[in-house]
Amino acid sequence: MTLAEAAPETFPAVIENAGAESRFVLVCEHASHRIPEAWGDLGLSRQQRLAHVAWDPGALGLSRGLARRLGAVLVHAPVSRLVYDCNRAPDQPGAMAEQSEMHEIPGNRGLCTKERAARTAAVYTPFHADLRAEIVRRIALGLAPVLVTVHSFTPIWHGVPREVEFGIIHDRDASLARAVLAESRGTGLVCGLNEPYSAADDVTHTLRLQALPYGLANVMLEIRNDLIATPEAEEAMADRLAPVLERALASLSTPAMAG
Amino acid sequence: MTLAEAAPETFPAVIENAGAESRFVLVCEHASHRIPEAWGDLGLSRQQRLAHVAWDPGALGLSRGLARRLGAVLVHAPVSRLVYDCNRAPDQPGAMAEQSEMHEIPGNRGLCTKERAARTAAVYTPFHADLRAEIVRRIALGLAPVLVTVHSFTPIWHGVPREVEFGIIHDRDASLARAVLAESRGTGLVCGLNEPYSAADDVTHTLRLQALPYGLANVMLEIRNDLIATPEAEEAMADRLAPVLERALASLSTPAMAG
Repeated sequence: MTLAEAAPETFPAVIENAGAESRFVLVCEHASHRIPEAWGDLGLSRQQRLAHVAWDPGALGLSRGLARRLGAVLVHAPVSRLVYDCNRAPDQPGAMAEQSEMHEIPGNRGLCTKERAARTAAVYTPFHADLRAEIVRRIALGLAPVLVTVHSFTPIWHGVPREVEFGIIHDRDASLARAVLAESRGTGLVCGLNEPYSAADDVTHTLRLQALPYGLANVMLEIRNDLIATPEAEEAMADRLAPVLERALASLSTPAMAG
Repeated sequence: MTLAEAAPETFPAVIENAGAESRFVLVCEHASHRIPEAWGDLGLSRQQRLAHVAWDPGALGLSRGLARRLGAVLVHAPVSRLVYDCNRAPDQPGAMAEQSEMHEIPGNRGLCTKERAARTAAVYTPFHADLRAEIVRRIALGLAPVLVTVHSFTPIWHGVPREVEFGIIHDRDASLARAVLAESRGTGLVCGLNEPYSAADDVTHTLRLQALPYGLANVMLEIRNDLIATPEAEEAMADRLAPVLERALASLSTPAMAG
């Protein structure tokens, strides 16, 4: 059915700035729209394969801008979420989605368990193993890592424009998300806590998998993709958000004033 | 200081019965007292290196007995916990303990962060990556895995005999632990929930890391090691506990009766 079974290629995470010593570990699960040859075109048009259904446009550029400004390591996935969405566990429907918004994904229809396991082993397992190794190395080195996942969302969803520009999403530990929200007030961005998605939509898998077991501060950022549609816009957004992250982390680390 | 830096050997998990299709995934983090050459003798006598401070005597034999009876996969660590305790995160004092009960571990005193990171990369990271890959493969295959970690404890602790024979320990999700406790009544063993340790002692790292993010049923078992001190005793204990695990899992899966 696909070549994946014949050629069990695996797709390691891409790690940039591995030597960086900032506490921030930036993660971009939806950085790429690449569909490796083994999976053909999944039955989609070229236009669909370049649209937000396949990746988070602007998220990698913004992440790189943040990584430079924060002196932070960046870990990103090299394969489109249409093959495997690294922010979903293998038993979640969105891991190898049959449908996303109005797009049907013909190449994902009725996958057998063998193909599901093959994609999991090829994309999800190496990505999270590499991210885990990087996080754990930093814990052992005493760097006290902080996990920030960077996403983008589409300005119009099922025909309805979205007003929120900057979504800040948390799972069980809300401390860093609340601090980021508090420090975002001066940015002029329309901010929303747990918008346009929340943990109830199963979008916080990476936070649950990589941060919570180690008690690491963590947050998921969602930027409306029309605001990071060019390299210049990505850089401008990184200029706005890097100080927000720095101040938010500092506010967590500062003991509350007495009285 | 040690050869670990010069020879970055890594120690993958040992996986037995990988083809088994039972829901149970048995894990034995403290299966081995082996100290690889790179770490010498850690300044310990031969007697100390074979004592419970180095491993959980009987736990691997019992795990193998359970794996055969349950038709289950078994994943165990090939290195002594004195080098790295795979049931501890790298920033926990017990990960590379300087002291355990009355034993000082000279080779673990004042480790620099570089050596801590080297041991983490050599032992902890590959063990948990291999265990994760096995669990995730089973989730993708639709096998609905259930995590059971198997440990043993010493009958005398700081000079005081322990009465409990079979400890059943849980983290945030207590459902399987409570079911195992309920099904243990007929075994004749002195059982204790969250004895002789509990999650508050940081002993549930593997459960937190490997089961909770995927919502898998999970439990940690602790058997007093004088009850599994010979191969025959290990087999006899496996005979007693395998049906307990089977019934406990079945009771979780059965909807409660109406009325």
